[in-house]
Amino acid sequence: MDQRQGKASIRFTEPVFIRSSASIVGTKEGKGPFGALFDRVGEDDMFGQKTWEEAESVLQREAVGLALEKAKVGPQDVSFFFAGDLLGQSIATSFGLSSYEVPLFGLYGACSTCGEALALGAMAIAGGYAERTVCVTSSHFASAEKEFRFPLEYGNQRPLSATWTVTGSGAFVLERYPSAWTRALINGVTVGKIVDYGLKDSMNMGACMAPAAASTIERHFLDFCRGPQDYDRIVTGDLGMVGQTVLIDLLQKKGYDISGAHMDCGIEIFDAQEQDTHAGGSGCGCSAVTLSAFLLKQLSTKAWRRVLFVPTGALLSKTSFNEGKSVPGIAHALVLEAC
Amino acid sequence: MDQRQGKASIRFTEPVFIRSSASIVGTKEGKGPFGALFDRVGEDDMFGQKTWEEAESVLQREAVGLALEKAKVGPQDVSFFFAGDLLGQSIATSFGLSSYEVPLFGLYGACSTCGEALALGAMAIAGGYAERTVCVTSSHFASAEKEFRFPLEYGNQRPLSATWTVTGSGAFVLERYPSAWTRALINGVTVGKIVDYGLKDSMNMGACMAPAAASTIERHFLDFCRGPQDYDRIVTGDLGMVGQTVLIDLLQKKGYDISGAHMDCGIEIFDAQEQDTHAGGSGCGCSAVTLSAFLLKQLSTKAWRRVLFVPTGALLSKTSFNEGKSVPGIAHALVLEAC
Repeated sequence: MDQRQGKASIRFTEPVFIRSSASIVGTKEGKGPFGALFDRVGEDDMFGQKTWEEAESVLQREAVGLALEKAKVGPQDVSFFFAGDLLGQSIATSFGLSSYEVPLFGLYGACSTCGEALALGAMAIAGGYAERTVCVTSSHFASAEKEFRFPLEYGNQRPLSATWTVTGSGAFVLERYPSAWTRALINGVTVGKIVDYGLKDSMNMGACMAPAAASTIERHFLDFCRGPQDYDRIVTGDLGMVGQTVLIDLLQKKGYDISGAHMDCGIEIFDAQEQDTHAGGSGCGCSAVTLSAFLLKQLSTKAWRRVLFVPTGALLSKTSFNEGKSVPGIAHALVLEAC
Repeated sequence: MDQRQGKASIRFTEPVFIRSSASIVGTKEGKGPFGALFDRVGEDDMFGQKTWEEAESVLQREAVGLALEKAKVGPQDVSFFFAGDLLGQSIATSFGLSSYEVPLFGLYGACSTCGEALALGAMAIAGGYAERTVCVTSSHFASAEKEFRFPLEYGNQRPLSATWTVTGSGAFVLERYPSAWTRALINGVTVGKIVDYGLKDSMNMGACMAPAAASTIERHFLDFCRGPQDYDRIVTGDLGMVGQTVLIDLLQKKGYDISGAHMDCGIEIFDAQEQDTHAGGSGCGCSAVTLSAFLLKQLSTKAWRRVLFVPTGALLSKTSFNEGKSVPGIAHALVLEAC
């Protein structure tokens, strides 16, 4: 059985079905344009914990719990977890998921991890390794600021190109067979490579990630013999407003005009004017909660038939930033279709 | 096609073949018992770079380059990389592998990542998604001390239960068909879950990880209807001397006596008496370079027929340690056989 397609892509011989999903977000996200669509909005951003990292772990644990509940299955019905976050050593995942006692593949792809998790989670099912997998990612504004930038107490000014890390977690139950529950299906994947244009501005991650998104989307079109017209939407993760312009320009030069079909989760999740979020939202949670709350709704109601979902990641750490390194990007694409 | 086996395991319908591997290590490892077996030993531990993180990136880049060279294939012949390291945001991998322009799945499983990478790299091939994948992990003593413990200049004392992070990287070229090159084959995987006994001593990671190793090995025996007698060696990653005792005791209580078959890469890679490495070696590079240099030699010469390879990981970060959290463990097992 050959499930390859082109140079970096996989076409599943049998599609994989998204049985359920769940999204849990913080207060700011709850006040944004998708506020009413999220399954749960926290009363505050501590989620009953003493530290932000513990709060982020609770986000993952509850998102998975709710996705399982909606799917009417238990942890014992899940073969593998595919999970990650933005923190050093993916610590929110380790403490968030241990109580489920499900075999775990820990992942790191910065904010692209939601795409990486769904790709591998679907591959495990279509390869015959699992009946059911759960994919989950999270981010938390305060734990991410502490990890990558300044202490919140310092109250630093943010340039307009900066993004606001989303506090939230999205979880997805994938399975081998369709059911009355199915919200959408996954039938293709294009895996991204690291793309480094040498940009060093961690306050302009959209520009750092856009070349990676352009590379993956172009590769996807070539591998699948498709173009922008074949998708209702091409949805990137968290390029924000600066990154969106760069992406559209880069693909224009390659002969693809995605301007009519492009949407970015980071741009949509906040009202930038009202909520002072500058270029938009970002983080492992941004694309995950948007997929769960909004994109899957559009697909399950058949308002849209086919979406290219492209979470984008900026591969920096505080050490690499302090040592003056560039910020390479990576992006993974998934073909999501109405069932 | 169903490739599941038991609750957490995969039995590949067709085995996956290890075509080549490479190991590059630092000076201390070069003076250890396996010194003569490694492909390359650095002249110093900077590998021509200005920072330890850059040095670790060079380790990964050169290990992959050498593994490809030995396999007589180029990056264009590889579908996917599966890679990770121990640093925050897997930064050694991002800067080490970008120049190859191969689609990348970034992984984090602490020192178990070598097992996770080989598991997913083999699954990608046996699932029909790739002809050839490369799996690589690394660690560096100095970048790991900086990331997790104290500045080297501080010269802190280390308890006897502490392990010494291996400076090294091991890379593996996996492929779908056997060839004259084949060094060994992978025909089964048991994926580990997070196991947390509540231990908090980051200077005794062997004890923190041993319960996870015991859990995975017991699960493996149950899923494959096997026992210690079915393996020439059961090889854990970096439990060290304290962890080895705990592992043997825990499995004894479950009815399995692995004392005659057990080997630990961390114990073997250094001469603890001569090299003052206390409980043994550790790190993402420890099990990887030992597999490449020693275990695959034993399998390719048919000195051993079947090995259970179980890299072990301690899921801590400096933030979780500083916040007083425990150190959960995880371990993934691979069945390696002579071809």
